[in-house]
Amino acid sequence: MEMVMENLSYQATLYQQLAGKIAELVDNGTYRPGDRLPSIRAMSRQEDVSINTVKVAYGCLEDQCIIEARPQSGYYVSARLPEIPREPVIDTVEISPFDISSSRLVVRIMRDVLDPGMVQFGAAIPDPSLIPGEKLARILAAVTRRHKQESALYAMPPGNKRLRHQVAKWMIKAGCMLNPEEIIITTGASEAVYLALRTLCRPGDTVAISSPIYFNFVQMFELLGLRVIEIPNSPVEGLHLESLAHALKHNSIACCVVVSNFDNPMGSSLSNSKKEELVKLLQTARVPLIEDDINGDLYHGEDRPTVAKAWDRDGGVLLCSSFSKTLAPGYRVGWIAPGRYMDDVLHQKIASNIASTSPTQLAVAEFLENGGYAHHLRKITKVYATKVARMAEAIGTYFPPGTRVTRPEGGFTLWLELQKEIDTLALYARAVEMKITIAPGAIFSTGGKYTNCLRLNGAFWSEKNRWAVEALGKIAHELAGF
Amino acid sequence: MEMVMENLSYQATLYQQLAGKIAELVDNGTYRPGDRLPSIRAMSRQEDVSINTVKVAYGCLEDQCIIEARPQSGYYVSARLPEIPREPVIDTVEISPFDISSSRLVVRIMRDVLDPGMVQFGAAIPDPSLIPGEKLARILAAVTRRHKQESALYAMPPGNKRLRHQVAKWMIKAGCMLNPEEIIITTGASEAVYLALRTLCRPGDTVAISSPIYFNFVQMFELLGLRVIEIPNSPVEGLHLESLAHALKHNSIACCVVVSNFDNPMGSSLSNSKKEELVKLLQTARVPLIEDDINGDLYHGEDRPTVAKAWDRDGGVLLCSSFSKTLAPGYRVGWIAPGRYMDDVLHQKIASNIASTSPTQLAVAEFLENGGYAHHLRKITKVYATKVARMAEAIGTYFPPGTRVTRPEGGFTLWLELQKEIDTLALYARAVEMKITIAPGAIFSTGGKYTNCLRLNGAFWSEKNRWAVEALGKIAHELAGF
Repeated sequence: MEMVMENLSYQATLYQQLAGKIAELVDNGTYRPGDRLPSIRAMSRQEDVSINTVKVAYGCLEDQCIIEARPQSGYYVSARLPEIPREPVIDTVEISPFDISSSRLVVRIMRDVLDPGMVQFGAAIPDPSLIPGEKLARILAAVTRRHKQESALYAMPPGNKRLRHQVAKWMIKAGCMLNPEEIIITTGASEAVYLALRTLCRPGDTVAISSPIYFNFVQMFELLGLRVIEIPNSPVEGLHLESLAHALKHNSIACCVVVSNFDNPMGSSLSNSKKEELVKLLQTARVPLIEDDINGDLYHGEDRPTVAKAWDRDGGVLLCSSFSKTLAPGYRVGWIAPGRYMDDVLHQKIASNIASTSPTQLAVAEFLENGGYAHHLRKITKVYATKVARMAEAIGTYFPPGTRVTRPEGGFTLWLELQKEIDTLALYARAVEMKITIAPGAIFSTGGKYTNCLRLNGAFWSEKNRWAVEALGKIAHELAGF
Repeated sequence: MEMVMENLSYQATLYQQLAGKIAELVDNGTYRPGDRLPSIRAMSRQEDVSINTVKVAYGCLEDQCIIEARPQSGYYVSARLPEIPREPVIDTVEISPFDISSSRLVVRIMRDVLDPGMVQFGAAIPDPSLIPGEKLARILAAVTRRHKQESALYAMPPGNKRLRHQVAKWMIKAGCMLNPEEIIITTGASEAVYLALRTLCRPGDTVAISSPIYFNFVQMFELLGLRVIEIPNSPVEGLHLESLAHALKHNSIACCVVVSNFDNPMGSSLSNSKKEELVKLLQTARVPLIEDDINGDLYHGEDRPTVAKAWDRDGGVLLCSSFSKTLAPGYRVGWIAPGRYMDDVLHQKIASNIASTSPTQLAVAEFLENGGYAHHLRKITKVYATKVARMAEAIGTYFPPGTRVTRPEGGFTLWLELQKEIDTLALYARAVEMKITIAPGAIFSTGGKYTNCLRLNGAFWSEKNRWAVEALGKIAHELAGF
């Protein structure tokens, strides 16, 4: 008798599971009103349940008016679903920020970008109002119409030729004479750096990096199984070359990763003479340099800074950049000039995703050629310079005494150093509760450094968001025990 | 005296080098008429040569009317360059197909896609006339205009929600009930498989694959340092499961890679019962399955085949696909449903390039929702079925007796087995001379198999290209010694 009971209850669970699964798909909009469901037989086969289980599940959904049977035709999602306005659902990784790995924290900070209800001081995304969305949309439409075939077919690596020409031309301003044939288009600067690392390193290899470093690079190092030597970087002096020289002398280093201009997170730059010294030092040691110049175009002053690649004499510098900060991150248009590693990087690119998207390559090429890119930069960098300065002032006003903040001459991130006792992971956790996202210092290192630091995205500074800086300052005061 | 002479000649070389470099950039269009050159001082610094060397180089270019000096302003690329019509320049990797590695051959086959003068029987690209270029261009323009902000900002992984809904809905036809939250958008199916391999394998690991296998996967295995066990695949029976069971028993296998429907290159499929058996076999061995279904929508018959994922009970199947064969390869829109590896694949995706391109995700979502995708598929698969059949007939007519050719029931590639003595690398080399590209069998294996086989891209069959099949047949006859 009990056996039978158990069997019955097992059956009940199965049909309930199936009905629940279907209801969820209707609920989240995958199945829309009027959509036809698989036949009872097909569903039974797919879900590996009996015909009867499907019948009961469908019947149950019919009772709830979620689906309806139409004679001689099958089951359909009911067209008369009551239209209840729903709360907006935000995709967030639901995790407590306290018991998570650095990697899950990075994923969360990146995904919180999509939450319009959040103050975006976390990821270093540009201010949406400074993205030329209208113009880009117009250009994208025009080039796709004009080049129907080209935009639909593969832009096989090295990528769209006109775009490579425009990049080569633009880089003259950075003191760098590149041939378009030396450039490969990538899916953003991140992919450029990733391909460079894949080309130069094997798991277990050691890379020398400027520290603190952009948190997504830390993720790459972890996933590629690389060891890291962190070379101290200073907001004023830039990378400490003596430490690098020491590291090169005493270790076998596969490559060096440096953001030469307005680095992320600190906004520091190397002077031209230090760039030259860096390149010569690495060249002598036969260690390639991955140079990330993603912020190079976001100079607040008069002149575009030079890249270290300008001093490259043996093709050992792999220069990476993108238009994600200056035009539109969603277009995913970046590039790499990999010097003597051209063939290897090309091979890595093709193997990992064949080619980058064609239409956005065409659009960025057109923007560079006829869209007034230089004019656009002058406009946005002026705004970013002001935002960063105002935000630094606000930090001075609201954060505890002793807080230090960078004064970057380019880009739009600010790096804060709080009192030693303050754990910025705790600050992060409390900020998120108030719908403010920030980037805690710990994720900018592989070795548990910078636990009292944080990076703020100055692109989202506005008087409207002043309350958020004030709130962060208040949390910092409390954590400091003031 | 001789010292001085040598010095002088060294100087001469330096300015000639510089002038030549600039002339090349003018020549290839990087510097256009009217563009301003860097100042003499800036160029001297950039190129690490004396002021005098730059002066002489500029003077020399002035003499040749390539650049012109404008008083008080600087040097400009001459606006009066004679407008000589040029021969079209095609970017090809210049290599002799005989002394090259498999990887360079693959790079060449991929890049030859861009050569409009070549008969494209090599890479498995769709027929451009079957790409709905007009409609896609219209849709892309409309969605970018409608969603200016969304198309410019990151479509953070898992990617555009509407697209994931549409994919989930579409996959019902493949017998697979997916939740949109289980899907990650990728840069094509290649990236989907690449991310899956990065997630499941460490260098030195062994993967079991169906053999022959798509050549870009072979490149991935090599670059990721993976060992490979090739499980025989038959055009009629599909994967030999007994061999797989044997391999699983005697080896530690990190994962298995299979194209379940109309595989590339052979066009073979697993029956539903074999799919179920495959999934159960791997599930029992606790070995995950990377299932590539890129050709699943290109069925020539009445019904869309089921995917093996439909029998997945423990999230061990990572299903990969894309719209590269059915809509437009240049849009780079693919996806992966990674089962229980969701978090890890998401992490790999963000670390390697943050996100895939936003505008093309929006466009494909719109096409699936309102663009008549099913109707489009019915149209193109009918054409591909005919093309493949006609090409097989032509092969029968022109190739030596004893040549075997597949009869795929989906997709558009044909796999040929010639007499044992025939080296299809030699056939490739001679075909390329006649501006016909093909995919020689050797690149579909890691172990030097299939040297007498080749894959032809049936998408480019037309009566206009009949001569090319005839020419290939003639070469085969000659190589066979007929």
